[in-house]
Amino acid sequence: MLTLYIGNKNYSSWSMRPWVLMKQADIPFTEEKVRFDAFDAGPETNFKRTVLKVNPAGRVPVLVDDGLCIWDTLAIAEYLAEKFPEGHLWPRDVQARARARSVCAEMHSGFTALRTHCPMNIEASLPQAGALAWRDHPAVRADVQRLVAMWSELLQQQHKGPMLFGEFSIADAFFAPVCMRLRTYQLPVPGVVTDYIRRVCALPGVKAWVDDALAEQDFLDFEEPYRTGRG
Amino acid sequence: MLTLYIGNKNYSSWSMRPWVLMKQADIPFTEEKVRFDAFDAGPETNFKRTVLKVNPAGRVPVLVDDGLCIWDTLAIAEYLAEKFPEGHLWPRDVQARARARSVCAEMHSGFTALRTHCPMNIEASLPQAGALAWRDHPAVRADVQRLVAMWSELLQQQHKGPMLFGEFSIADAFFAPVCMRLRTYQLPVPGVVTDYIRRVCALPGVKAWVDDALAEQDFLDFEEPYRTGRG
Repeated sequence: MLTLYIGNKNYSSWSMRPWVLMKQADIPFTEEKVRFDAFDAGPETNFKRTVLKVNPAGRVPVLVDDGLCIWDTLAIAEYLAEKFPEGHLWPRDVQARARARSVCAEMHSGFTALRTHCPMNIEASLPQAGALAWRDHPAVRADVQRLVAMWSELLQQQHKGPMLFGEFSIADAFFAPVCMRLRTYQLPVPGVVTDYIRRVCALPGVKAWVDDALAEQDFLDFEEPYRTGRG
Repeated sequence: MLTLYIGNKNYSSWSMRPWVLMKQADIPFTEEKVRFDAFDAGPETNFKRTVLKVNPAGRVPVLVDDGLCIWDTLAIAEYLAEKFPEGHLWPRDVQARARARSVCAEMHSGFTALRTHCPMNIEASLPQAGALAWRDHPAVRADVQRLVAMWSELLQQQHKGPMLFGEFSIADAFFAPVCMRLRTYQLPVPGVVTDYIRRVCALPGVKAWVDDALAEQDFLDFEEPYRTGRG
């Protein structure tokens, strides 16, 4: 039996990836939500106490499969792809699979400016914060420019959609939280990207996560550089 | 035919990983070294001009296999593991493989403080800079503490060495540049870690990379927070 440890659904972009992946692939699992109770928390917080039992790195997400703990989104994705080969979580074609792994690894280690200045906040609408981030941080513009180039090429020239590699794959799960950011901060992107974001938001797994995030109503000030309260 | 694009061997920790992996696994490849000619370089530099032809993200390493470009170290490692299954680049056991992917992904997205304050610099010996990083940056101490816990557990309890998962695997290639840092900055680690570092340095693939790095003699000031020149 699979258990996935995740953080707050409104904020935890890394948790969202394997959760959406498993929902979309119809992989049954139990969800164990561990509320973020402090930022860079010491071992005394409930978050750290709970998570350290399954991940010595002290972070979510963690997948537990009959006592075996797998942490870090990319390792979880590879584990699931191996365990459920019939789900074709990576593209079947070797070239497409190599490209999908390249863009996922690029996401995994990069896009730091976008992640720093536009943290995921699904329930919020922050166009003003987005406009300032866009104006003041060339690195945010460069990150978005790279995303636009990557997605446009994959959607228009390579695989012709509806998802980045034709059918839904790990790559779409990896970029789903980025779609959330682009929407919350209303960063300027071309139509091909807006259309892709709309299709990602319409995926049942993404809709389910977003619904849960909206129902959460749990304002965490250390996750909120741009708001002092909800609504 | 495989071609691996890499940066300066003295400095490019991400390039070192797939290079060492391929050498250790006896996978034939051609090396294409692209000298770092500016930090955060614009598209006008030779580095960016050359690398952008094979990787739209503009970074090394990039593996090119008959026109197919795979970028980012983790995607390259997965591609090679699939292409050369007889090399067993990941551990054969499913649980060990999941753990190896977890620690590699943790390396891929983490250890930011160690990477920032103790950048790889193979030819240099910087114990004083290391002592200051250790004294002034709790996050550097936390990163090293996590490495020590991870390696000790794998070497002593899980697989009993000589490498992290018994035989050499992608995980050792991933942590080889970290061994270089621990040595250059002489950060305090227990005997079990010192012994592991010694074994990593003795791997033929690591020795070959270090020899090339020492022969390079190419001082790049934007990679040198702690030196004004060589020697």
